[in-house]
Amino acid sequence: MSNSASDPTDLIDTTNLAQALEKFATDRNWSQFHSPKNLVMALTGEVGELSEIFQWMSEADSMKAGQNPATAQDVKDELADVLLYLVRLASVLNVDLNEAVTQKIKANEQKYPVANSLGVSTKYNKK
Amino acid sequence: MSNSASDPTDLIDTTNLAQALEKFATDRNWSQFHSPKNLVMALTGEVGELSEIFQWMSEADSMKAGQNPATAQDVKDELADVLLYLVRLASVLNVDLNEAVTQKIKANEQKYPVANSLGVSTKYNKK
Amino acid sequence: MSNSASDPTDLIDTTNLAQALEKFATDRNWSQFHSPKNLVMALTGEVGELSEIFQWMSEADSMKAGQNPATAQDVKDELADVLLYLVRLASVLNVDLNEAVTQKIKANEQKYPVANSLGVSTKYNKK
Amino acid sequence: MSNSASDPTDLIDTTNLAQALEKFATDRNWSQFHSPKNLVMALTGEVGELSEIFQWMSEADSMKAGQNPATAQDVKDELADVLLYLVRLASVLNVDLNEAVTQKIKANEQKYPVANSLGVSTKYNKK
Repeated sequence: MSNSASDPTDLIDTTNLAQALEKFATDRNWSQFHSPKNLVMALTGEVGELSEIFQWMSEADSMKAGQNPATAQDVKDELADVLLYLVRLASVLNVDLNEAVTQKIKANEQKYPVANSLGVSTKYNKK
Repeated sequence: MSNSASDPTDLIDTTNLAQALEKFATDRNWSQFHSPKNLVMALTGEVGELSEIFQWMSEADSMKAGQNPATAQDVKDELADVLLYLVRLASVLNVDLNEAVTQKIKANEQKYPVANSLGVSTKYNKK
Repeated sequence: MSNSASDPTDLIDTTNLAQALEKFATDRNWSQFHSPKNLVMALTGEVGELSEIFQWMSEADSMKAGQNPATAQDVKDELADVLLYLVRLASVLNVDLNEAVTQKIKANEQKYPVANSLGVSTKYNKK
Repeated sequence: MSNSASDPTDLIDTTNLAQALEKFATDRNWSQFHSPKNLVMALTGEVGELSEIFQWMSEADSMKAGQNPATAQDVKDELADVLLYLVRLASVLNVDLNEAVTQKIKANEQKYPVANSLGVSTKYNKK
């Protein structure tokens, strides 16, 4: 985790959030529970809750779920929960998320060249 | 998604990453596959891959998984994949992730007051 | 886990599978890794792989995925993997799956009376 | 799904449960929601709830979670929910679960020969 000022070319800056979560856990003496193994399970729980919002929804309705008053707050809350645990997990693992996504996007650009990938979802499915 | 310059008090800034993912999808004509419903399933797949790294690991070993040469690159890659789909999902749902986590942390501070929560993991488990 | 003969009114009989998995683990000295916590993570990994098969598929195409030659074997394999870990997990937790699902179906019948639930998926979403 | 009497050499018999779930869905006109894609998401939600039970628990405590009065009923309920959706999913996909697990165990016996696998959890992690 860098403490330096954010670089405007960074893809993502999670510095303040990571610090807020560290303080939140330390204030409550919760760091003892935050092993990466435990946090991956907590992340799984939150992705499960996100999935429950969408499970019986058509794809078309899912496009509107962020604005639909019946689901908007739940969607926002569950996206937040997933993000909180993901950033906390990266912190305790000492992984720089900006570096990780920057590398990954470069790798994906080589793995899925535009010419071969145009509109072909099946490219996604094979590793 | 705001296009404005990052506010230094923001907890997280995903603007550049969201734009990079939008371009990546548009270039490949993949936006057609990126319904929220589909992206939640893709997120589930990546969390599953993250879980596989840690499934037989002790909690103690999981603390070192981000630096252990046997797992460091896999950990980084899977954290990146989860983050990519999460940010893409927030984009297509038109949810502002910084606002979402800011609200959520405030709610968590009220839900788990320091005095009542000190070292008590069970507070986590009950909704 | 009962060793008695299967009762024809049982909803499910996992006795032979549970025994086969116990032998498989014991033969390889793998029982040491099979804590419930670890097995839940392994189950998560397999559900993630199942999800990857369906993530870019329309609902209509998903109806045919068990017969479609492009996906049939993967579908079968991943369903099997989920089931293997689920039955193994129940064994190490000493939970009788037949009793658990019998109770659960009775509870669901009371929670979702036919008259109030007809064609209403939203009943599912609220706990 | 076979309607024939259970073969005593079957590893698993889900016939009665599959029929009960079919009736449950038909009675409520819920089959319309039970596409495989939707059911995989519902399965994900239940695995998330199972994961939440174990997320802050040590491996040692997880061994007792099926008998511990604080968690026993939740464990039973969530195992049941996962199994219900899994069996329902196999039904709508027209996959024979007994055949699937029988094949899979044979494949695993060849993939992980006893001599090479003794006590080595890392064999699990590499595909």
